[in-house]
Amino acid sequence: MTDLSLATAQTIINAAMEKAADLKIKPITVAVLDAGGHLTALVRQDGSSIMRPQIAYGKAYGALAVGTGTRWLNANAESRPHFIQALNGASGGSIIPVPGGVMIRDGQGKALGAVGITGDTSDNDEACAVAGIHAAGLVADTGA
Amino acid sequence: MTDLSLATAQTIINAAMEKAADLKIKPITVAVLDAGGHLTALVRQDGSSIMRPQIAYGKAYGALAVGTGTRWLNANAESRPHFIQALNGASGGSIIPVPGGVMIRDGQGKALGAVGITGDTSDNDEACAVAGIHAAGLVADTGA
Amino acid sequence: MTDLSLATAQTIINAAMEKAADLKIKPITVAVLDAGGHLTALVRQDGSSIMRPQIAYGKAYGALAVGTGTRWLNANAESRPHFIQALNGASGGSIIPVPGGVMIRDGQGKALGAVGITGDTSDNDEACAVAGIHAAGLVADTGA
Amino acid sequence: MTDLSLATAQTIINAAMEKAADLKIKPITVAVLDAGGHLTALVRQDGSSIMRPQIAYGKAYGALAVGTGTRWLNANAESRPHFIQALNGASGGSIIPVPGGVMIRDGQGKALGAVGITGDTSDNDEACAVAGIHAAGLVADTGA
Repeated sequence: MTDLSLATAQTIINAAMEKAADLKIKPITVAVLDAGGHLTALVRQDGSSIMRPQIAYGKAYGALAVGTGTRWLNANAESRPHFIQALNGASGGSIIPVPGGVMIRDGQGKALGAVGITGDTSDNDEACAVAGIHAAGLVADTGA
Repeated sequence: MTDLSLATAQTIINAAMEKAADLKIKPITVAVLDAGGHLTALVRQDGSSIMRPQIAYGKAYGALAVGTGTRWLNANAESRPHFIQALNGASGGSIIPVPGGVMIRDGQGKALGAVGITGDTSDNDEACAVAGIHAAGLVADTGA
Repeated sequence: MTDLSLATAQTIINAAMEKAADLKIKPITVAVLDAGGHLTALVRQDGSSIMRPQIAYGKAYGALAVGTGTRWLNANAESRPHFIQALNGASGGSIIPVPGGVMIRDGQGKALGAVGITGDTSDNDEACAVAGIHAAGLVADTGA
Repeated sequence: MTDLSLATAQTIINAAMEKAADLKIKPITVAVLDAGGHLTALVRQDGSSIMRPQIAYGKAYGALAVGTGTRWLNANAESRPHFIQALNGASGGSIIPVPGGVMIRDGQGKALGAVGITGDTSDNDEACAVAGIHAAGLVADTGA
């Protein structure tokens, strides 16, 4: 299996929302992107603020941009902020370099896409993304 | 009821995909936007091309921009193309002025959001959007 | 008098809304810009669609861009569409070249700013703009 | 009541200007946005500089972007500047992350829109926004 199907994306989204319910966190927005950085599916829970779709997308896009989860980008923002600023510019403002953007890989390590989640703390957002990926039987790469 | 919930958006999306299956058309991408033009939910069926999310979004956004379905924009593109070109620029390239962007209204005519569908002919895309809105017990405004 | 005060802008806006009520037209959005093309005041009536602020602004900005009302731009869009397209690009998408953008001049012909109105037909939009400018004791230039 | 009417926006604006007069501060610009981030009304007092409309808008939009007042964004700009920079890019430069962007909520906590004010110190700008919202009988969320 090399592609990310809509069915898999929906499995990831539903499991991420279940995890959010378990954690009793704020409403989340979940974006699932294919390996080319294009939206496969997105949901925004009731009560989410208006820029959540761009933030969720930007986390997932940021992960795909460098091939690992956005926790790596977040660390780089401290160690070499000029790189993150430049990446922001080069992407036309499309990356959000905080945790919650997680690569989706198959058992062989092949990148199938990425999940981006926003709504609560970055750590909780990331936990929901990982739960969603695991529910689909796939491998999560948070960039830690 | 005055807001568009995620549950309603998902009802619209699922019914639109059922209509697409009945019509045996190409894979579709469906974007549901709230009344402020922000994504509530999006799905892109397997086999869709990469810019389908932007096209689906742009149809829905175009409807909300002027307060009626994109069939009205499509007619204007023939009668006064300079207005549609200008609207494209003013929106930062966010509107797609062809049929398939349909306003979602409640029984009192209040705008709740819009659906944009792309993948097959504009007429078939629009038929799926209307089917989705009706399945949610709401009123479709195609701009015809 | 050489500047456009907020008080004058509000006089124009209120008279334009009274004219709209007299004409029993759809809800309007009114933007008043100073001579430098910067917003002095804007109102969007209840029930207006979401891009009306940009359209009202774009009509007023289009008038200021060339120093006459947007009826002139609308005529040019037919006689030399490449000019209007280029102006659209040069303005970063800020002009809307259809009637309803009207220059505000004092008795000596000096440009004080412009009004842009959108919501109904371009002719009705323009009539409200002219009524507003006259109510402030100033001179309207529609570009006719 | 779930929507922000033009009448309510004007009540907020007038009370904010009264507060500014009481405080004897510099001329202010006030933008009121609906829950979707679209201008409902804007005024720029005589003597304001030319980018005040974008700054007022950007404060209100920044609040709506994340669902709380811009004092929260201002704090984040210190604790994780890369997030605020990224949000700036993702919004196309539309957010202004300093105090003075205040969410407007009804008694049940529902977001009705946001007010953005600029012209004096951020603290004074914010005080005027809060006064305006209270004058309309609504609840202000500064992000503090």
